[in-house]
Amino acid sequence: MKKAIILVSGGLDSTTTLAIAKSQNYACYALSFDYGQRHRIELQAAHQVAASLGVIEHKVIHLNLDAIGGSALTDSQIKVPTTGILSNQIPITYVPARNTIFLALALGWAEVLMATDLFIGVNAVDYSGYPDCRPEFISAFEKLANLATKAGVEGQAFKIHTPLIHLTKAQIIQQGLRLGVDYKITISCYQPNSVRHACGVCDACRLRAEGFQKLGVADPTVYFTRGDSS
Amino acid sequence: MKKAIILVSGGLDSTTTLAIAKSQNYACYALSFDYGQRHRIELQAAHQVAASLGVIEHKVIHLNLDAIGGSALTDSQIKVPTTGILSNQIPITYVPARNTIFLALALGWAEVLMATDLFIGVNAVDYSGYPDCRPEFISAFEKLANLATKAGVEGQAFKIHTPLIHLTKAQIIQQGLRLGVDYKITISCYQPNSVRHACGVCDACRLRAEGFQKLGVADPTVYFTRGDSS
Repeated sequence: MKKAIILVSGGLDSTTTLAIAKSQNYACYALSFDYGQRHRIELQAAHQVAASLGVIEHKVIHLNLDAIGGSALTDSQIKVPTTGILSNQIPITYVPARNTIFLALALGWAEVLMATDLFIGVNAVDYSGYPDCRPEFISAFEKLANLATKAGVEGQAFKIHTPLIHLTKAQIIQQGLRLGVDYKITISCYQPNSVRHACGVCDACRLRAEGFQKLGVADPTVYFTRGDSS
Repeated sequence: MKKAIILVSGGLDSTTTLAIAKSQNYACYALSFDYGQRHRIELQAAHQVAASLGVIEHKVIHLNLDAIGGSALTDSQIKVPTTGILSNQIPITYVPARNTIFLALALGWAEVLMATDLFIGVNAVDYSGYPDCRPEFISAFEKLANLATKAGVEGQAFKIHTPLIHLTKAQIIQQGLRLGVDYKITISCYQPNSVRHACGVCDACRLRAEGFQKLGVADPTVYFTRGDSS
């Protein structure tokens, strides 16, 4: 079995990505990041997801991106927008260089595992305007990976798999359900409460809810109501 | 004044790079990494270097690369080689994807600071065989940076400055001395002792000592002797 590293946040997209990697018969290694995110509780979901899909190892890298800030997700002074997605704008939930950082760390682990397959659940259709979710970014990272590493110099080619990149949220959910994903244990919300209930109004919640709605299947997400956000 | 981020490890190369950035009239922001390195004590040198060269801010990012391992610098089970540099081999002190990870983090901070100039002291002449110290890697990272970021999408171009890339170690030292660098406060050793004395036999020590020797100036490095490595 070929080894693959899958970036797993505990959200809907990355969970589906892990299920896809598994269905393609990869030996799956899950990688999560405790990076000072507001919704750090997603790591609990990541652990459950990794366990439920039977990964070989689940590693969590700790890094204090909140020391850099510049995003509503890593700077507690910046509020998470709840007024809906504005088109043609990169939202304040964009974390500077996040996918570059995460893929770089995945690349490091890949070298140690002698793996060349990396999976990331980026999405360019229902995407929320993040520059580091686009195909041209992924392709540039692949080129970089082959130049940056000992494995690359020795002639191996890294492949960044993005199985969701051209799917709508509804199609992603459809594929996940087909593969037996239990979306109840996943959390997409940018500001869930302490028992992992979702706010229902941030961009991540809106995109997720819309996906279930368009597909016409029940949304297993539990939402908290105002005054219950603790 | 234009802002620049300079990767500062506390070693000879990065210190010279910071002095060069300063001489080019950049407003200098130093970035260091506490990444589980064996020679973590280099961060003390980084603080001294940053202070002595009057940076505006010195940020330290913490990340546990020792959880990934795969290098003599991040895995305490792997010994640092002391038998001299073997040509045409990537040494075991290579840290998987390290410069990709470090530049990615610098890129994140750059976006927040609204800076587009990044300085890194990589060197391809007296270089120790690391793939992520080569010009082609740097150029690929520049391309990636412009695709990965909000700033890039908005039309700004990131520049990765590598002022040492074509210099020998002797030339680097010569340039640093001209700029008033005090190399006594820097540490290049991969396994210094607790009072920041160098081993004298690792690759980093060998390259550094050779540089001073070739230039014909006194080497201010203090070496510990066997039995004095604590």
